[in-house]
Amino acid sequence: MPAFDSMWTDLLEVGRYPATGGYRRFAWNDAEMTLREWFRGEADRRGMSVEEDRNGNLWAWWMPPGWLGDPRDAFVTGSHLDSVPDGGAYDGPLGVVSAFAAVDLVRARGIVPARPVAVTAFSDEEGARFGVACIGSQLSTGALAPERALRLRDTDGVTLAEALRGHGRDPRALGADPRLAERVGVYVELHVEQGRALDLVARPLAIASSIWPHGRWLFSFTGQANHAGATRLADRRDPMLAFASTVQTARGAAALHDAVATFGKVAILPNGTNAIASQVRAWLDARAADEDTLTALVAEITEQARRHAGGDGIGLDVEAESVTPIVEFPGDTRQRLQTALGHLGDIPVQPTAAGHDAGILSALVPTAMLFVRNPTGISHSPEEFAELDDCRHGARALADVMADWIG
Amino acid sequence: MPAFDSMWTDLLEVGRYPATGGYRRFAWNDAEMTLREWFRGEADRRGMSVEEDRNGNLWAWWMPPGWLGDPRDAFVTGSHLDSVPDGGAYDGPLGVVSAFAAVDLVRARGIVPARPVAVTAFSDEEGARFGVACIGSQLSTGALAPERALRLRDTDGVTLAEALRGHGRDPRALGADPRLAERVGVYVELHVEQGRALDLVARPLAIASSIWPHGRWLFSFTGQANHAGATRLADRRDPMLAFASTVQTARGAAALHDAVATFGKVAILPNGTNAIASQVRAWLDARAADEDTLTALVAEITEQARRHAGGDGIGLDVEAESVTPIVEFPGDTRQRLQTALGHLGDIPVQPTAAGHDAGILSALVPTAMLFVRNPTGISHSPEEFAELDDCRHGARALADVMADWIG
Repeated sequence: MPAFDSMWTDLLEVGRYPATGGYRRFAWNDAEMTLREWFRGEADRRGMSVEEDRNGNLWAWWMPPGWLGDPRDAFVTGSHLDSVPDGGAYDGPLGVVSAFAAVDLVRARGIVPARPVAVTAFSDEEGARFGVACIGSQLSTGALAPERALRLRDTDGVTLAEALRGHGRDPRALGADPRLAERVGVYVELHVEQGRALDLVARPLAIASSIWPHGRWLFSFTGQANHAGATRLADRRDPMLAFASTVQTARGAAALHDAVATFGKVAILPNGTNAIASQVRAWLDARAADEDTLTALVAEITEQARRHAGGDGIGLDVEAESVTPIVEFPGDTRQRLQTALGHLGDIPVQPTAAGHDAGILSALVPTAMLFVRNPTGISHSPEEFAELDDCRHGARALADVMADWIG
Repeated sequence: MPAFDSMWTDLLEVGRYPATGGYRRFAWNDAEMTLREWFRGEADRRGMSVEEDRNGNLWAWWMPPGWLGDPRDAFVTGSHLDSVPDGGAYDGPLGVVSAFAAVDLVRARGIVPARPVAVTAFSDEEGARFGVACIGSQLSTGALAPERALRLRDTDGVTLAEALRGHGRDPRALGADPRLAERVGVYVELHVEQGRALDLVARPLAIASSIWPHGRWLFSFTGQANHAGATRLADRRDPMLAFASTVQTARGAAALHDAVATFGKVAILPNGTNAIASQVRAWLDARAADEDTLTALVAEITEQARRHAGGDGIGLDVEAESVTPIVEFPGDTRQRLQTALGHLGDIPVQPTAAGHDAGILSALVPTAMLFVRNPTGISHSPEEFAELDDCRHGARALADVMADWIG
């Protein structure tokens, strides 16, 4: 599969940060702009016309011969090109590269599409820059209001509106895409597995059953800056202590609820060695198998955090930045994938605790996901990995699904 | 005291960050360069010649009439102009402004100096930018090797050497100042109090007895980045947990030892909401009344931190970035201040847990400190405050001390 391999090689150095080996491909930064150019190049090479929609999502169209007018009821496949800070190579790009490779494989079989095909790269899936995940797909489905999106700021204080204008995009264009439901017949997203379930059963591929409900909550602990040497312990209002207690509370509560809860991002003011912090802002990422459990988990962490803060004279503000309900991928679409891949035997079906554009789009159109085995389970890390053979296997399976849908 | 008031007003907006109301005057940044210009202007206005020594420390000289050759055995007073991140207006600048005001007051009394007088501003006292405190005075006394200083990096990766070159300074000039011991007869630093001891006894002024031994230790907890949603709790190596436990250990150990220990600065990698941290670097600031206690305190925190880290499969590296022994200000110098200020009654004598250039210089020359009452005790914070009357009182007292020494 030479096209797959060469696309993969072309991407390896884009936005890679030498000191960590991880990727820093954030919405509208230099690396991400390079990836957008790469996407256009791959589409051009295949004679696919590229459209950047009002929300910055990229669509490369392969239209049936003689098709007139707008695309309708298309087979759409792809993923995203951006990364978390110091992320891995696979999360996102694997789905886009596999989609282009699947187009090649389907064409090589001489199949002429009876319906439009699109390869997509949704904008800012990880939310690394502006703090909200799946901004592109959420805007298009109407889940995220453009007024809210445009006001989001990165850590340098740059708003999304400013970032868009800086690249010649019109912030006023942002908003729900009224053509989406009509255009997309099905959206199939191939993604590297995030977890070790496939390795444990020695299988290269899975189909997604559901996405756990999940969300991000910003905990802002506010105390009072003061001299780290000259301030008696009794006179301190140090928000670091309540934060530290809350980290432990979150872990304990997650274990009790068979869920996960993580503080991975923290911003401290003034962040000086010899100054007691005035504020600790910490983002809780929490996920559970069902919505009641997630609600109970976050309520418990919040209540305990208030207790920790209150005891130290610390103010606490908790803000839900995004909460995504459970996504059950439709059973009939899943069954159609199983049938199209029948020659591979019964494909394992498993849930994922990671959010995806496919989950966002499922509010409007049928969606499905394929996962490619991750032998270490590590993701959102420079060590994220999948075997090349498994990746090729995934692209071939995606081609089988595409052929089934469009032939 | 119009000169004092107008100097104070001139400084109020320099390097003030509107969002917090705090100051961001860091070594060789724009605000600090403006303060260096301000220093030259105040010296010029008084006919004092300005010298920037090899380490970036500023000296404004008032020489006795007819003095030939280099200054010797001078009365030196001043402080520093840089701040901690979002620091207050008083810590540092109060000592420099009071020093210039004291020169005015002594001259207004018609006193002709029998020995040289210098007003000084030592470079990078807070260490906010390069992580090591008192860089200017430590270089001049030989306590800090220039090779080490030049390699220090700020959070943007800029070395001190690069910062110096960027402002036309020669990094190769850095090093111990062989003239220091001969030039400085005594160094008296006036400083805002950091703590509430004077407020509790309703006195405007104190003389320092000693500076607590203190230091900074960098705790680097290293785990493994991974997906915050898809990684089971059992599969995680999350360094945030061991860090959180260590924050609480430090507080408990400090209380037991009647000392202080603070984690106020933290750097997290990759610092993404949906990624488990790969590394948490946290700086411990610890101080105690004597060196044995400080050593025991830090050993205890380190040992417990290793236990926390080991239990979670986390690597821990602890590095002493700076350790400053106790400074006992010389009793005869202190007594001379008491005598010169005899008309104010017996001045309270108290230790401080904050480091100062006076402490560094005390290794080579006689030093003393005056503290001006801080009614809230808050320092290293935008809320740092002293009453204007107390500040003027401090400047007059400094003038009395200067007159006694040079008359």
